[in-house]
Amino acid sequence: MVPRRSLTIDTEKATKTTYVVGTELTVNLYRCAPPQARFFSIKCSPNVHYKVTPPTKDKNPSPYPLTPNSILLITMDTVSETAFDSKLSVRYYGEKTEALEDAVLHLTAVEISLDVDADRDGVVEKNNPNKASWKWGPNGHGAVLLVNCDSETSYKKKVDSEKEDISKVSDLQDMSKMILRTNGPSTLPEGYKLSMYISQTTSESVRIFRPRTNVKKDNVWKHKLLSLFLKDYLMVVGKDKLTQEVPYLGGKTELMFYVEGLRFPDKDFDGLITINLSLLEPSGKDFPETPIFTDKVIFHVSPWIMTPNTLKPVEVYVCSTKDNFSFLKSIKNLVEKNGYKLKICYEYMNRGDRWMQDELEFGYIDSPHHRFPVVLDSPRDGDLQDFPYESLLGPDFGYVARHALNEDVSSLDSFGNLEVSPPVTVNGKSYPLGRIIIGVAFPTAKGGRNMTQVVQEFLWAQKVQEPIALFSDWLFVGHVDEFMTFVPAPDRKKFRLLLASPDAGYKVFKSLQNTGQGKTEMFPGMPEAITVNAILSDKKLQAENRYVQNCIDWNRDVLKKELGLDDEDIIDLPILFKLIEEEKKMSTRAVAYYPDMVNMIVLGDQLGIPKPFGPQVKGRCALETEMISLLKPLGLKCTFIDDFAPYHKLLGEVHCGSNVLREPSPFRWWNLEL
Amino acid sequence: MVPRRSLTIDTEKATKTTYVVGTELTVNLYRCAPPQARFFSIKCSPNVHYKVTPPTKDKNPSPYPLTPNSILLITMDTVSETAFDSKLSVRYYGEKTEALEDAVLHLTAVEISLDVDADRDGVVEKNNPNKASWKWGPNGHGAVLLVNCDSETSYKKKVDSEKEDISKVSDLQDMSKMILRTNGPSTLPEGYKLSMYISQTTSESVRIFRPRTNVKKDNVWKHKLLSLFLKDYLMVVGKDKLTQEVPYLGGKTELMFYVEGLRFPDKDFDGLITINLSLLEPSGKDFPETPIFTDKVIFHVSPWIMTPNTLKPVEVYVCSTKDNFSFLKSIKNLVEKNGYKLKICYEYMNRGDRWMQDELEFGYIDSPHHRFPVVLDSPRDGDLQDFPYESLLGPDFGYVARHALNEDVSSLDSFGNLEVSPPVTVNGKSYPLGRIIIGVAFPTAKGGRNMTQVVQEFLWAQKVQEPIALFSDWLFVGHVDEFMTFVPAPDRKKFRLLLASPDAGYKVFKSLQNTGQGKTEMFPGMPEAITVNAILSDKKLQAENRYVQNCIDWNRDVLKKELGLDDEDIIDLPILFKLIEEEKKMSTRAVAYYPDMVNMIVLGDQLGIPKPFGPQVKGRCALETEMISLLKPLGLKCTFIDDFAPYHKLLGEVHCGSNVLREPSPFRWWNLEL
Repeated sequence: MVPRRSLTIDTEKATKTTYVVGTELTVNLYRCAPPQARFFSIKCSPNVHYKVTPPTKDKNPSPYPLTPNSILLITMDTVSETAFDSKLSVRYYGEKTEALEDAVLHLTAVEISLDVDADRDGVVEKNNPNKASWKWGPNGHGAVLLVNCDSETSYKKKVDSEKEDISKVSDLQDMSKMILRTNGPSTLPEGYKLSMYISQTTSESVRIFRPRTNVKKDNVWKHKLLSLFLKDYLMVVGKDKLTQEVPYLGGKTELMFYVEGLRFPDKDFDGLITINLSLLEPSGKDFPETPIFTDKVIFHVSPWIMTPNTLKPVEVYVCSTKDNFSFLKSIKNLVEKNGYKLKICYEYMNRGDRWMQDELEFGYIDSPHHRFPVVLDSPRDGDLQDFPYESLLGPDFGYVARHALNEDVSSLDSFGNLEVSPPVTVNGKSYPLGRIIIGVAFPTAKGGRNMTQVVQEFLWAQKVQEPIALFSDWLFVGHVDEFMTFVPAPDRKKFRLLLASPDAGYKVFKSLQNTGQGKTEMFPGMPEAITVNAILSDKKLQAENRYVQNCIDWNRDVLKKELGLDDEDIIDLPILFKLIEEEKKMSTRAVAYYPDMVNMIVLGDQLGIPKPFGPQVKGRCALETEMISLLKPLGLKCTFIDDFAPYHKLLGEVHCGSNVLREPSPFRWWNLEL
Repeated sequence: MVPRRSLTIDTEKATKTTYVVGTELTVNLYRCAPPQARFFSIKCSPNVHYKVTPPTKDKNPSPYPLTPNSILLITMDTVSETAFDSKLSVRYYGEKTEALEDAVLHLTAVEISLDVDADRDGVVEKNNPNKASWKWGPNGHGAVLLVNCDSETSYKKKVDSEKEDISKVSDLQDMSKMILRTNGPSTLPEGYKLSMYISQTTSESVRIFRPRTNVKKDNVWKHKLLSLFLKDYLMVVGKDKLTQEVPYLGGKTELMFYVEGLRFPDKDFDGLITINLSLLEPSGKDFPETPIFTDKVIFHVSPWIMTPNTLKPVEVYVCSTKDNFSFLKSIKNLVEKNGYKLKICYEYMNRGDRWMQDELEFGYIDSPHHRFPVVLDSPRDGDLQDFPYESLLGPDFGYVARHALNEDVSSLDSFGNLEVSPPVTVNGKSYPLGRIIIGVAFPTAKGGRNMTQVVQEFLWAQKVQEPIALFSDWLFVGHVDEFMTFVPAPDRKKFRLLLASPDAGYKVFKSLQNTGQGKTEMFPGMPEAITVNAILSDKKLQAENRYVQNCIDWNRDVLKKELGLDDEDIIDLPILFKLIEEEKKMSTRAVAYYPDMVNMIVLGDQLGIPKPFGPQVKGRCALETEMISLLKPLGLKCTFIDDFAPYHKLLGEVHCGSNVLREPSPFRWWNLEL
């Protein structure tokens, strides 16, 4: 719909106004007519066009009859060269068509368009008709904004969005371009102004900058020169400055703005941001100006997106501790042999905290013009707590944290308890970025542990990887990565869900017993050594594992439903658990009985699996043999890594002790059908 | 989709479980098979049904071949009479079909259904398939909840939702019924429990009660007796009690619950509430129970809904002050003559604050089973501030307030600045409950006044009357009711928008001058008396009214667009304004030059209009004559009420000094297509 503006004209005094090409002026001719007027006629400059409603029988009567509903619609199709160079006048006539009075209107025509990349191709097109709305999906529209959560500087650093000015030109890359295109006389008529504004709420989420000096399109050399002097970027609107005049440069010009996102979608922020630009008309001395034309654009802030195991690894992160030299060597071998990068977090930074999986989660943000990884810092805050900010945050490496408010932080807040599935389709609904998976307590349980509300709210608010809550509170440590992971597969849904399964574990041990290997030992040659027969005759252990299998099966049913999986998409891994009593005997929870093989690192088709130390059959570990027989058909290569002393004994395994930065998904989040 | 549960059976020990009719048990037959098993067969009680997947070529082979994917699907269609009265057993066979071992499963079948009025007909139907989701519209579904914001007691009162218990049986009327229907043996098998639970977030919005004593369906007399003893209602779940066991009564029974809403939709609450009920299975000594079946229902809290001028009045509210006796008499005449009720707020309560429109807004909440009016108390908090709580809150009269947090409350927070349109359709989108209208500053204006954020957020969050923000900050008092109102009409959209119009005002005065009445006086016989000629020759007044007309025209354009109005839907009323300087000369803002006739009370076809004291022509006020000629064709009757001294001089008029409680809309909000 064409924007319409009501305008009053006057027989006593000429009216002056500015017209924006593409709009329509409506004049109630009766309202400003002399009381005795009965007819009217119209004259105007050639670039002014008009229509009279309601239409008269005679198409172009001279003069027109005046009725209480007589409305004049005015448009112009070319911009003015000078102020008020166009004119329209209405002559009123009395009963006997005698001329009574004239009402004269002087017009200046300008073009104004606030533009963004609404079609998401990386280029700011001109006046996209959809620029003021957001629509998800491949046929959708709406510009994209990044939270400027990286840090251009690595020394004395600060998250860029927390700085009020632009300290490096490179920071502009993290912002979205917005262009004010104008065309018209060299200056606006006296008293007219352009004004940009945002709402109070919006100002918490966005800041807009522009070069201090007005840059004309042809002054490219000047623009380049400018970029040397950084303080030449001015904040136009932002916190405590909701509105500001912006220059009108005259002729056909473009003024560049840089839009900086400040916060991620969250419980109280849907990610949408509206920016307005108005043309203000002077209302005369002592009166405030009135907006006579408003253009709007909308941005959607990129959500924070997690990367499933099926995406290509870029860099593997592990901690170096006093006691993990050989583990580190195994990881280094696995990683470098396959051409990935390895980053070791040394002890001065980790202070003995080896749980690299738990302190942080890697994700990324994405826009048509730019994208970069963003680490989500867990409220866990162990001795590793400085690592995400101090070692990861940097140029094109963002940082976001959520801090628990009035809640206790529990072990369920560690990000071994935060995973993401590969892409799935569930009952026809597609999740091309997968679904986030977290672990909580059964809501029916009194005194259960949970992931803090702020983190859960953050995850749900990102929307593009709708979370699934599993039940992980049955585990002593309480992380979903203790009983599940995803590996790539060549067939079916292109992945398998691996689940720890005591039943599958018992099946291996029973097979050994059946084939006369009952006396072989689990943990051979280790202080913990125990025969297969002894394991199978331990009724308490069996009851515990029955309970564990029930807990895992409950999660299996949820995962099948929420990820649309069949039994054929799931592989049961032979893993036994045992229950331990917690302090004060408050409750009994599960830990892995031998190294928890599902807690693996997945690097393409290479799996780094905790070495289980199972019974030896013909010189090979029966559990390893079983793992290989389950995973080899998928083209996966198993490397068993000894994590017994430095990880397993401390109730974690390979996955808990590592983290993988992966490439972003080739699927762009705004193409999602929500 | 039928809910499925993974179940493990065991060859060493019989497995016992409880089955919920309508679900499916899936057993991985391979997982629990002896390692050497190659075939299996199945036997079961007649009420147990099973299916084997993947299907075999031979439809019913005996025995079945065992594969790693062999899954057994179990259902039952009748409930058990005693615990574990049904049975299924799997026999495993070796390579040469020699019998190896049996895995036995004992089953108890029960029916469990948590039920609500999901089809919105006032009756809690059984197991509505849509009970766990919300869909707007006439073909939608989902149960409705009221915020229990009235007060059953009028003495020592408190909003009911702020009390933790039920003090009167009548309070149950304000809650939604929810029924737990169960069928099965007289008791659940040992260790099984039913448990109701809500999330932490949900507990801020809902409380659920049930009668303390278990009531069997046939014990109607007992139920009646119970209702005499009020403390017999127990809170089942709510704040600080997220989960609680609920009794299983045995046989075919219904257990009634009462669901109480605690908060309205707001910025951080979408109005949706989920309530869960699980059947918990014992996992053995020392292990926590596991939920094996969960039923869910959803409620949507009724939004707070405003009533436009086109709805039937019920009761008119005005203040009695020392100086408004004759005004009060006029109002009383108008109201009682037309058969409406009048409620006078006396001075002990109003303490001289006469602005009944500004301290509160009437609305209502609605559900299929019950509805009542709810007053929204403004953060204005003038001397009338106690009136809404003290005089309005009561049985079936609700109360809700929003308090400004760290913001200044301005005159724009008075509810003369909060109105609602009649039903409209805009570009095909229908608003059958109308749209809320508020006034704010131009966002381009520095230092403009605004309506507080908390109130705006509350209004937007109600969703069913999507608000429109007008520009009212140009007015000294700053209320939308100073320049607009709606009146009923027999034709077109069934209403007209009335707008104050200085142009229309000047037109009346110019007509008088043209017909030789230039010397007649505005305000005849009053100290303010001034001739028509003098008014028309006042260039300053003219410039001010030009500005005012621009401001109103800006709003006119917004209203036309947002309400889908044509010029023919709008009537311009002849009203002049003047500008006054505010304290400290911060800005210049408008007040009515003579009583602001648009600020009227609308009671069906009766309009109570501020008496304008215009020039007398043939013994009749020319402004009144003009008003009548504009409104009479719509069948509207104008009564001009002298509010000059007690209201107009204090910068308000009839509408500002009154309020109207109206009947709710016949359109039910859940039928809206959102």
